[in-house]
Amino acid sequence: MSTTEPPSPFHVAVIGLGSMGMGAARSCLRAGLATYGIDVRQEALDALSQAGATAVGTDGRAFASRLDAVLLLPVNAAQCRSALFGPLGIAPHLRPGTPVMVSATQSAADACRLNDALKALDLPMLDAPVSGGSIRAAEGRITVMASGASSTLARLRPLLDAIAARVFEIGPDIGQGSTVKIIHQLLAGVHIAAAAESMALASRAGIPLQTLYDVVTSAAGNSWMFENRMPHVLKGDYTPHSSVDIFVKDLGLVLDTGQALKFPTPIAALAHSLFLNASNAGYGQQDDSAVIRNYAGIQLPGDDPDDVTGGEP
Amino acid sequence: MSTTEPPSPFHVAVIGLGSMGMGAARSCLRAGLATYGIDVRQEALDALSQAGATAVGTDGRAFASRLDAVLLLPVNAAQCRSALFGPLGIAPHLRPGTPVMVSATQSAADACRLNDALKALDLPMLDAPVSGGSIRAAEGRITVMASGASSTLARLRPLLDAIAARVFEIGPDIGQGSTVKIIHQLLAGVHIAAAAESMALASRAGIPLQTLYDVVTSAAGNSWMFENRMPHVLKGDYTPHSSVDIFVKDLGLVLDTGQALKFPTPIAALAHSLFLNASNAGYGQQDDSAVIRNYAGIQLPGDDPDDVTGGEP
Repeated sequence: MSTTEPPSPFHVAVIGLGSMGMGAARSCLRAGLATYGIDVRQEALDALSQAGATAVGTDGRAFASRLDAVLLLPVNAAQCRSALFGPLGIAPHLRPGTPVMVSATQSAADACRLNDALKALDLPMLDAPVSGGSIRAAEGRITVMASGASSTLARLRPLLDAIAARVFEIGPDIGQGSTVKIIHQLLAGVHIAAAAESMALASRAGIPLQTLYDVVTSAAGNSWMFENRMPHVLKGDYTPHSSVDIFVKDLGLVLDTGQALKFPTPIAALAHSLFLNASNAGYGQQDDSAVIRNYAGIQLPGDDPDDVTGGEP
Repeated sequence: MSTTEPPSPFHVAVIGLGSMGMGAARSCLRAGLATYGIDVRQEALDALSQAGATAVGTDGRAFASRLDAVLLLPVNAAQCRSALFGPLGIAPHLRPGTPVMVSATQSAADACRLNDALKALDLPMLDAPVSGGSIRAAEGRITVMASGASSTLARLRPLLDAIAARVFEIGPDIGQGSTVKIIHQLLAGVHIAAAAESMALASRAGIPLQTLYDVVTSAAGNSWMFENRMPHVLKGDYTPHSSVDIFVKDLGLVLDTGQALKFPTPIAALAHSLFLNASNAGYGQQDDSAVIRNYAGIQLPGDDPDDVTGGEP
């Protein structure tokens, strides 16, 4: 005698409901996973609850033992440690063997430290940073750079299928995924800083910025970041999608990585200085394209025409 | 030298039959224009002649008076001046009013000087650098960044239709087209240098380079140059498409432009130093991706495994 029972759903908690985490959580719901949300911000929890989450909370310990997988998408290594091992940390409450996908951008060394702590609780970790931005996260189409045991990746497959368009298996060692993400961020950060330098020089030269944008995006000087971020400069709208301070952090990780490997990264070091200076000038929480605010002596869209300082905040 | 003339009403000479010029000349032939070629290299002249050119030569003075337009595609400003005003220069032999499209990458100041000299002979100039590479040139699909009188552009229309996919009208002033091209080259050069830095760091970190390439080209860190040039590094093949020394020149023009405008271009200045160093190390005539040869202490595809100097030439 058989009963027609729907297959038992896959239970996943998403920790960190920022623009990427919220998009990933919504993609899990859309894929039919039993989805749980953990964040410090009540409005994010309410939004995910309304979208159909099984349970949400600032404290996930009550439902930790029901989970088949955990996805960590906070900003940095410290937040990962706190979410897993802090006063409200869920790691000690997970069933042994529950796979933990760690997608914060952090150093390979931090990824290894987290892995050691998880391993002590028999919790397998996937070192799996992501790229793609909030729009692709909401569509379930992010890119994942994963390293770790292939058995761990296999057990995370329902989650990966829900959130990712592409999963790159970098290698078996924890830290390799983080290293690839950091090298990726080298390019992303340098491209934004170079895009800003080119637009600033065009402004100084009296070239219409929309014309420069149209030329570059149809020619060999284009980059994903130029095409995606420079419309913010054209509109004079620095509402943050990803902030200046994110690249202060991520290019800092590039320099840490170079230092650990005794390897020079001169362009990343310069771009880091430019983001640092923009942050110190008061633009840290603005969109990363606000690195163009480093340049004085130009007029940009949205500037007060009587102010040629570059628009001090 | 052939003397058969097709029944086309529009006669155009292409000066400088390098990879871009030869592609443009072939596109003119394909479009049915009566096409003439001028170059110092006999093998280039022979190739264009066999492709159906009306006439070719190291000296174009004999057919100058039959031309409806001239396209200059040599490497730099000095070659433009020589081709027009040197001992074999054709400018004094053109009919007054013949439009001259100048597509070398040169400073706005050099473009203006050339315009002054042409104007004295009643020859209207279009300041019209191009982008797109040799493949798109051969397909008649380059991008043109044009400035000058719209009447000059109108008279060059049969030529532009033959060679270009897009023609951006930057503005009415000679020098604006050159400035946009130079700013474009800022991005192109920085992107190649950043791509090299990222691949070098990946090599040092033990990340498979093909994996990094696959991740970056499917994520937000991508650039046209990363995608186009890094396969040369993956193959260890530095056969020049565009050389290190081209970016020594073009990023030098970026710095000259910044100096003329009293405007800082820190990332371009650093990238220029990296291309200069690669040139001094003996890689000047290799593909521009050979800027990665600046980095010692790594193994790259094609390297002698016993040599960790970075592959001295």
